[in-house]
Amino acid sequence: MLIKEFTVMRASQFFISTLKEAPADAEIISHKLMVRAGMIRRLGSGIYAYMPMGLRVIHKIENIIREEMNRAGAVELLMPLVQPAELWQETGRWQKYGPELLRVKDRHDRDFIIQPTSEEVITDIARNVIKSYRQLPINFYHIQTKFRDERRPRFGLMRGREFTMKDAYSFDRDVAGLKKSYQVMFDAYIKIFTRFGLKFRPVAADNGAIGGSGSHEFHVIADTGEDALVYSRDSDYAANMEAAVALPPTAQRAAPSKTLQKVPTPGQKACEDVTTFLNQPLSQSLKVIAAIRTDIPEEEAGHFAIILMRGDHELNEIKTQKNIGEFRFASESEIVHYLGCPSGYLGPVGLSERTDIALYADHAVTVMSDFICGANEKDMHYTGVNWERDVPLPSTVADFRNVVEGDPSPDGKGTLAIQRGIEVGHVFQLGTRYSEDMHATYLDENGKPQLMQMGCYGIGVTRIMGAAIEQNNDERGIIWPVSIAPFEVVLCPLGYDRSEMVRNTADKLYGTLKNAGLDVLMDDRGERPGVMFSDWELIGIPHRIVIGERGLKEGKLEYQGRRDKEATAVAIDDMANFIKDKLASE
Amino acid sequence: MLIKEFTVMRASQFFISTLKEAPADAEIISHKLMVRAGMIRRLGSGIYAYMPMGLRVIHKIENIIREEMNRAGAVELLMPLVQPAELWQETGRWQKYGPELLRVKDRHDRDFIIQPTSEEVITDIARNVIKSYRQLPINFYHIQTKFRDERRPRFGLMRGREFTMKDAYSFDRDVAGLKKSYQVMFDAYIKIFTRFGLKFRPVAADNGAIGGSGSHEFHVIADTGEDALVYSRDSDYAANMEAAVALPPTAQRAAPSKTLQKVPTPGQKACEDVTTFLNQPLSQSLKVIAAIRTDIPEEEAGHFAIILMRGDHELNEIKTQKNIGEFRFASESEIVHYLGCPSGYLGPVGLSERTDIALYADHAVTVMSDFICGANEKDMHYTGVNWERDVPLPSTVADFRNVVEGDPSPDGKGTLAIQRGIEVGHVFQLGTRYSEDMHATYLDENGKPQLMQMGCYGIGVTRIMGAAIEQNNDERGIIWPVSIAPFEVVLCPLGYDRSEMVRNTADKLYGTLKNAGLDVLMDDRGERPGVMFSDWELIGIPHRIVIGERGLKEGKLEYQGRRDKEATAVAIDDMANFIKDKLASE
Repeated sequence: MLIKEFTVMRASQFFISTLKEAPADAEIISHKLMVRAGMIRRLGSGIYAYMPMGLRVIHKIENIIREEMNRAGAVELLMPLVQPAELWQETGRWQKYGPELLRVKDRHDRDFIIQPTSEEVITDIARNVIKSYRQLPINFYHIQTKFRDERRPRFGLMRGREFTMKDAYSFDRDVAGLKKSYQVMFDAYIKIFTRFGLKFRPVAADNGAIGGSGSHEFHVIADTGEDALVYSRDSDYAANMEAAVALPPTAQRAAPSKTLQKVPTPGQKACEDVTTFLNQPLSQSLKVIAAIRTDIPEEEAGHFAIILMRGDHELNEIKTQKNIGEFRFASESEIVHYLGCPSGYLGPVGLSERTDIALYADHAVTVMSDFICGANEKDMHYTGVNWERDVPLPSTVADFRNVVEGDPSPDGKGTLAIQRGIEVGHVFQLGTRYSEDMHATYLDENGKPQLMQMGCYGIGVTRIMGAAIEQNNDERGIIWPVSIAPFEVVLCPLGYDRSEMVRNTADKLYGTLKNAGLDVLMDDRGERPGVMFSDWELIGIPHRIVIGERGLKEGKLEYQGRRDKEATAVAIDDMANFIKDKLASE
Repeated sequence: MLIKEFTVMRASQFFISTLKEAPADAEIISHKLMVRAGMIRRLGSGIYAYMPMGLRVIHKIENIIREEMNRAGAVELLMPLVQPAELWQETGRWQKYGPELLRVKDRHDRDFIIQPTSEEVITDIARNVIKSYRQLPINFYHIQTKFRDERRPRFGLMRGREFTMKDAYSFDRDVAGLKKSYQVMFDAYIKIFTRFGLKFRPVAADNGAIGGSGSHEFHVIADTGEDALVYSRDSDYAANMEAAVALPPTAQRAAPSKTLQKVPTPGQKACEDVTTFLNQPLSQSLKVIAAIRTDIPEEEAGHFAIILMRGDHELNEIKTQKNIGEFRFASESEIVHYLGCPSGYLGPVGLSERTDIALYADHAVTVMSDFICGANEKDMHYTGVNWERDVPLPSTVADFRNVVEGDPSPDGKGTLAIQRGIEVGHVFQLGTRYSEDMHATYLDENGKPQLMQMGCYGIGVTRIMGAAIEQNNDERGIIWPVSIAPFEVVLCPLGYDRSEMVRNTADKLYGTLKNAGLDVLMDDRGERPGVMFSDWELIGIPHRIVIGERGLKEGKLEYQGRRDKEATAVAIDDMANFIKDKLASE
C-alpha cells in the first residue's frame, strides 16, 4: 500500500474551545450545541464565523455535494457575490425582491446586490456562452456564500443572514429535456442526503405557474422542524403542507335532524369559543374567512370574498390563492363595511343573495349538517343549520384547507400522516421564467432561436449542519453521522506526555488509521480523561479510542462509539480493522 | 492496488468554450488568454465569474495552500463576508479606509462592510476565545472572497474588485513568539510557491512603524509585473523598490575644475532637456523637488521643503516620508509663492540662507562636482556649481532615491539587479496594532493580562492564476505548471464515436491513469484534431495523449508535452508509466 505523507492533526494545535453554558440567545438545541462545542461564533445578527471544528463539517458536506453533482454530470463554476443590479432589473427582481435583498452602491454610485441566489447571473452567462443546441443540455453549479437580510434572523444556522448554498441551474432545449435534467438532479439529491447519513424525505412542493410534479423539497426529519410534511403511511405519496391535496369527502351529507335556531352567544367569536359555549364539537362549526381580492378593483363584484371552512380545519393560503386569485385577509373595518357585522359572528345564511360578494367553500363543508355558524349579527349564532334547507351551497367548492393526520392519501393508498421537517434542499422546474425576460436563446437544428428551458436546484450547506444536529443529539452533545463528522475517529491517549508506551502506541495507531484513509484526530492536550471525554462527546466525534497504560499491559485499547453506553476492550492489533469494519458498516 | 470509483471527466459534459479573439478591454496577456480559454467571464467592472476550467485552477491553488498551511500548524476557519461596522470602528479603519471599503446598510439601517481583509474579526474572535497563555501560539487562516472597490479595476484578475484571498493571522505571547510564527509562515510560503511551479522571489518590504525584517512580499517573476524587485547578484539580499537601501557613495567628491557660470536656458525645464541643451550627461544635473509637509502648519518654518537629487535618480516616496515626515508634492503656484520662481529653474544657490525652508539632499548629491542646477530665475541655470565653494551642502543628507541596476548591494556583497514581479503574497508582523485598539489580551503565567502579538499573512489566490499565465505562455496559449493546471493530462481520441478500437484504448488508458491518481480529461467531443489540439494548447493542459487508429495499428500512442515542439510515439502499454515518470520529474 502506498504510504502517503500526512499531517498529524493534533488537538493541541487544532483549536478546541468548548463551553459549559449555551448563550442566552440560542433558542434551539442545534444552536446551543454548536456554540457550546465551539463550532460557530456569532459576529452579528444572523452572521457567524465557522470555527475550525465547524468548518470541517461544512467542508465534508460540500465535498459530498460536489462529488455527487459531478457524478450526475453537473459542472462547477463560481459566480460572484457582488452582482450588478442591471441583471436583476432585467428580470424585475430588483423591483420585486423585498428588503431581504441586500443592495449596495459602489464608489461610482452604481447599484449592486449581494447575491441571495444566482438565476440572473447564470442566465446571463448562458445567453453569452451557449450558442447552439449542440451545447445543451448543461447543468452549472456553484457552492458560494449567500446573503438574505432576514427580518428576524434566529435559530443559529437555521435562519441566518449569511449562509452557504449550493445552487445548480440546468439548461435544456425543451420541456422533455428539462424533465430529464430534473430527474437526474432529484436522484442525485437522494444520493447526497443518503450519504449525509440523515433521515430525510423528499416531498412534492407547490411550483406556482408550471404545475405538475415540477418542484420538490428535501427535508431533514426533526421534531423541531419548522415545516409540516405530509406523507402516506401506505404509499410513497409525500408533499409539503402547502401542496398536500385534501380529497373531497366520499361520505354523503347526513339529512337534517335539527331545526334552525338563532341563539345568543355574547362575546363568543372564535369557533373554539362558540362550540365550547354551546357544548358542541369544533367540527360542527363553520369558519368564515373574509378576504380582499387584490387583483379585482374595489368597485367590482368579487373584490370582497368569503371562504367557508369547517371549524377545525385550517386555511391553506397557497391553495386559496390558486382557487380565488391574489388576495389578502380583510381587516375588521373592511368586514364591518361590507357585511355590517363584526367578525366572529359571520355566516352564509342571507349572504348568498349578495351578488357583490364572492362565496367559496372548502370540500369538507359540503357534507356538514346541523352545523353552527354566525348569524351576521353581533353576539348571535345559528345552530342546526343545513345546506339547501337553510342556505344554498356556494357554487364554487374546492380544496382550501391543510390536510390533517388521518385524511385519505390523494393517491388512494392509505391515510396521511404528518411529521416535522427542516427544508435543506429544493429542486424546481423554472421553465422559461428567466430565459424569457433575459432573452436566453440557443439556435436549434434549423438555425432558429429557441428559449432555453431552465431548472434550479439548491442545497443549504450551512443549514444542513444545524439540521443534522437537530436530528442527532443527546444530553451529552452532538452525534454526527460519520460522513459529516469533523473527524471520524479521535484517539485519547491517557498520559501522552508522560508515558512512552502510551505515546508510541497512539502514534503508531494514528499512522495506521490515517494510511487507511481515515480522518483521525490525536488528543495530545494532556487534559484529564473526564475533560477529554466530555469534549469529544459534546463535539460529537463518532468513534473514540482510549489508549491507557492499564489496558496496554493487557494488550488492549478501549473503543466507544458515540451512541454506545459503554466502552469495549479491543486487542491493540485488531483495533485498526475493528474501526474500519465499524466505518464500513455505517 | 485499491481501485477507487471515479467520475469520468468528459469534455462533452465539462463545459469548454474557447474564443479566437480576446475582448477589447483585455490589456494584458493573462487577461486575454483567460477569456479566450473560457476560464473567466466578466460580469461587471472588476467582477468575474470563474468558469469550470478556471475554477479548477483556483481549487488547485487553494488546496496547495491549505495543505501547506495545515502542515505549518495553522488552523482553518471561515470568517463572514459581511462584517459589522462596530468592529471596524474600534480600530479606526471604518473612518480611515477610503472608498475602496465597500460599505452597506442592512434593512435596519445598521452599518456593515464587505470584507477586504479580516484583522478586526479575527481579533474579535481571539479576544473572546483565547483566555490563557496556554492557548498560544495559534494561527488561524481562511480562504474567502474579498471585495475592494478599486478606483480603476483592470488587468483581469490582477486588479479586480472581487477576488479570493487566503489570509492568516497569528497570535503570540510576545515578540519572540511572533518572530517564530512569522518565520514558520515565511517557510510555508516558500513551500507553497515552490509547489505552484512558479519562478518567484520573496523580497523585504517596508513595514512602517515596526521596522526590522518584519515584512516580506512574495512576487511571481514576470516582465509584465507592476512592481520592481531589487536583488543582489551575489547574495540573498532582496527587497522591493520601496524598501531597497541605496548606500552612500564611497567615492570622494572630485575637486572643482570649472567656474560658476549663469547661462540662459530658455524654455528648458526638465533635467533631461537642460542637459541635452547644454550637451552634458544627465547625471551632472541636480533635480530639485519641492514638497509641502502636511504635518507642519503653513506658518511654521519647514512647512515648505526642498529635496535635492541627482538628475538621473528617482525620488522614493516611502523613504522620503520616513526622512522628512508626512508630505505631498508642492503645486506650481506654491513653488512660485515660496520661491518667486517657476519650477524647472530651481537650485540651492542662494536658498541655503532661507531659514523658512527645509533643505535635504540625497547621498548621491554630496559627491557631485561641476554640476548644473537652476538659478532660481526663469530661463536661467548655473553650470560649474560646486559644493562648499558656491553653496553649502544641506545639513540633512539621507537615502531619498530608488536604487538603480548596478548599485552596490546593502549587505556589501555584489551589485544590485532589478527585475519585474507581481505581488502574490505578503507576510507582515503587526505587533499590537490591532490587539491594542481592540483590547485583545490573554492571561500570562502570573495571571496578568498581556496584549497578544499578531502577524498577518496573505496570498492572493485568484491573482496567482493571472500571474502564473503572465509568466508561462506562448503564441499558442497558456502553459500551466502541472500542479495548478485544470487537468494534468488530456486524452484526445481521434474518432471516439466511430472507432471501437480507439474508444476502448482511450477508455482503458483513462481508467489506468485515473487509478494512478492522475487528473485526466477525456476529449470525447468528436471535434477535428486541429480544433482539439488548438483548444488544449490555448487552455494549457501540460500533457496530451493522442489515440488514433493509425498509431494503434503499430501499437503506438502519441504524446506531446505543452512545451514540446513535436509529438513522441510511445507504446500503448508503456504510456501510463511514461506519463507518471513525466509528472514525477516536474
